[in-house]
Amino acid sequence: MATKQLLQNISRYNKINLHLRTFSSTPASRQQKSLVDINIDAGSAVATLTLNRLPANALSLQLMTDIKKAVEHCEKLDKCRGIILTSASDRIFCAGLDLTEMYKSDEQRLTEFWLSLQNAWLSLFSTTLPTLALINGHATAGGCMFATCCDYRVILPNFWIGLNETKAGVAVPKWVIDTYYHVMPNKRLAEADLLEGRMYKSADALKMGLVDDMANNKAEAFEKCLKFISRYDDVEDSARAATKLNSRSNILKEFEQNRSEDLQSFLKNIQSKSVQEFLGKYLQGLKQKSKK
Amino acid sequence: MATKQLLQNISRYNKINLHLRTFSSTPASRQQKSLVDINIDAGSAVATLTLNRLPANALSLQLMTDIKKAVEHCEKLDKCRGIILTSASDRIFCAGLDLTEMYKSDEQRLTEFWLSLQNAWLSLFSTTLPTLALINGHATAGGCMFATCCDYRVILPNFWIGLNETKAGVAVPKWVIDTYYHVMPNKRLAEADLLEGRMYKSADALKMGLVDDMANNKAEAFEKCLKFISRYDDVEDSARAATKLNSRSNILKEFEQNRSEDLQSFLKNIQSKSVQEFLGKYLQGLKQKSKK
Amino acid sequence: MATKQLLQNISRYNKINLHLRTFSSTPASRQQKSLVDINIDAGSAVATLTLNRLPANALSLQLMTDIKKAVEHCEKLDKCRGIILTSASDRIFCAGLDLTEMYKSDEQRLTEFWLSLQNAWLSLFSTTLPTLALINGHATAGGCMFATCCDYRVILPNFWIGLNETKAGVAVPKWVIDTYYHVMPNKRLAEADLLEGRMYKSADALKMGLVDDMANNKAEAFEKCLKFISRYDDVEDSARAATKLNSRSNILKEFEQNRSEDLQSFLKNIQSKSVQEFLGKYLQGLKQKSKK
Repeated sequence: MATKQLLQNISRYNKINLHLRTFSSTPASRQQKSLVDINIDAGSAVATLTLNRLPANALSLQLMTDIKKAVEHCEKLDKCRGIILTSASDRIFCAGLDLTEMYKSDEQRLTEFWLSLQNAWLSLFSTTLPTLALINGHATAGGCMFATCCDYRVILPNFWIGLNETKAGVAVPKWVIDTYYHVMPNKRLAEADLLEGRMYKSADALKMGLVDDMANNKAEAFEKCLKFISRYDDVEDSARAATKLNSRSNILKEFEQNRSEDLQSFLKNIQSKSVQEFLGKYLQGLKQKSKK
Repeated sequence: MATKQLLQNISRYNKINLHLRTFSSTPASRQQKSLVDINIDAGSAVATLTLNRLPANALSLQLMTDIKKAVEHCEKLDKCRGIILTSASDRIFCAGLDLTEMYKSDEQRLTEFWLSLQNAWLSLFSTTLPTLALINGHATAGGCMFATCCDYRVILPNFWIGLNETKAGVAVPKWVIDTYYHVMPNKRLAEADLLEGRMYKSADALKMGLVDDMANNKAEAFEKCLKFISRYDDVEDSARAATKLNSRSNILKEFEQNRSEDLQSFLKNIQSKSVQEFLGKYLQGLKQKSKK
Repeated sequence: MATKQLLQNISRYNKINLHLRTFSSTPASRQQKSLVDINIDAGSAVATLTLNRLPANALSLQLMTDIKKAVEHCEKLDKCRGIILTSASDRIFCAGLDLTEMYKSDEQRLTEFWLSLQNAWLSLFSTTLPTLALINGHATAGGCMFATCCDYRVILPNFWIGLNETKAGVAVPKWVIDTYYHVMPNKRLAEADLLEGRMYKSADALKMGLVDDMANNKAEAFEKCLKFISRYDDVEDSARAATKLNSRSNILKEFEQNRSEDLQSFLKNIQSKSVQEFLGKYLQGLKQKSKK
């Protein structure tokens, strides 16, 4: 499947410069074992991407770079019917940005860090492969964001999910908000969620439309994922791919227009004295909590 | 009612170049009996436009050109309180694009064909007249699209309605997606519908919000249409008209910006070897089905 | 809290020229007692803005200018945890634009009038302070619009709320429509509301999502407002503020791009012979109604 060519055509059509995807965010020298395990099931041709930075899959520069690489790896496969994103932990799907990356960090590292977040989001939100989140643990802030990038979400019981950034002193970027509104049916309630940093327990997330289904365990969730992918069995793949990009083109276009300003805004905001002080206290609080 | 002048004012306000409406898509020489019957009820001043290309109202270049002409005809009437779009068949409202127009066709014909679709959509989606779809048969792909252009939809029981383009190898254009999202309350589910090419039975379409009401027969549906139009009895007409255009201006603006690229994208996609092969097989399958 | 600086940063990020906020709409000489009472509760640091132009809080040039000034006054306070907008009347929250301002008025006054409406909307919709509407009376047209600008709405029983502009011959501007769609979960029904000028009784407004809660009396409604504001107790304020602007940046950007055309469109529309005639009859009707 000539996904790349398709992307170029579609990109031209929508005036989305997807070449921006290749914005470099990691120096070539930093080559390490990937923090995302890729497992392609030979039978179903479905790829499972397992976030493997225990205990919390806190989004470090490397983890986000590896998410992007893993998605691009799947796109280049001869045959890949979809991507299932899940966690190596059975307690935390992903706890969001690694706050230590943002505390007392220099501007170059902060820039690389933020670009890696933008690139990881872009790769997952705009891939034409079917994407599914198998949420087998808490999915907070950036963790919830990656889940909302997907075409389908199934969650296991009794976990928390939500964009709770404001509670950690981080503004929710416009493209993350757009992704949340893409999923949540009620914008009025969704905006209130974001301002307050609200999280939902699994059953409530299902009720609100933040996830599509719930399963009792990982095996059952995996079956539901395969069942979702099978909906595309009698669909022409390039038509589905182009339709997906058309459906998301508004959000992608605005992201491309604003990504530089978004970076500048992040750098200014995160380096301000008040936010650094807030982060310091917040990290201190987390440390003491984990000691108890 | 100086609809034309109103349109120009509004158009200027919204920077929508509605003169693009006049994009020629049919040579002047091809004059034929219209495939859309126009019937103006003297009492109610409501125009019924009946699609009359049996058996399936497959959208040929001529049928789409005639839809546009019929809408414009109604706009020029001294008094027209609304347009009801329905079908001469009691089995099929409209089965979507005439796929034979796209199979082994030359580029000039394909261009005319696609422009006629864009123009028909534009005339129906942007007319300031109240528009209603009386869906008295299956409404698939382009058929569903024309229904979603309207201000109000009433369907008879046990028909299929939906944008099933991806199943026929055709990408859903952005403006058709926008029109679908304009109607469907839940974007998350709506996107899933589009990717999978899902259709709903009448009762489910009502539950999902894809149609506004259901009626037992055509007469009852017609009464419901008249009742809907009567909501405007004590409304100032030019204020209603301007409000309608304001409500739809985002979608119209983006359409105007992208219509050339949309055409190029269609031409490239439809003329690709894989899509032509897929269409060939698909048409073959339809032919064999209809023989049984 | 350096709200101004924050706004400037955010504004730059979102390319919203918030300096346009300072568009002059009232000559410096016209200094009168404010039509908006400001009361800051020392304990909670919550500001109550009470519209005080009895009997109906009809939106005159001065009332709208005073709304903007009151919001800006609160933004400059050292500590203000939120704004509650309410009415001095226990029967009418706000009955919308003062139609007498638009009837037989000269172009300069009409221009000042419309700019004051735009500016009042902008100040309330884009302030980063938490905003709440305590709707203790009918909220029609512009009254409903100001309610939808807020982050949270609580209404007392048995009042009417809605954008009924089309019934008074006034087109609903695009930015007012956008604000309505920002709140209403179902766009299909919301568009129908606007075209028809529909109003909802309190209980139905709650069911439709046009308001967030209902209270039996003003004291109970005030408690609910304080409870809503307390949701932000453990939220970092500048992150919340930036998130709010990001959430509303699409609507704000489009407003800034179109505000001049919007003014021109209003002037053209309102000065047309047919609308002036309609307004004359409408005002005559209101006068006779109030005599009975």
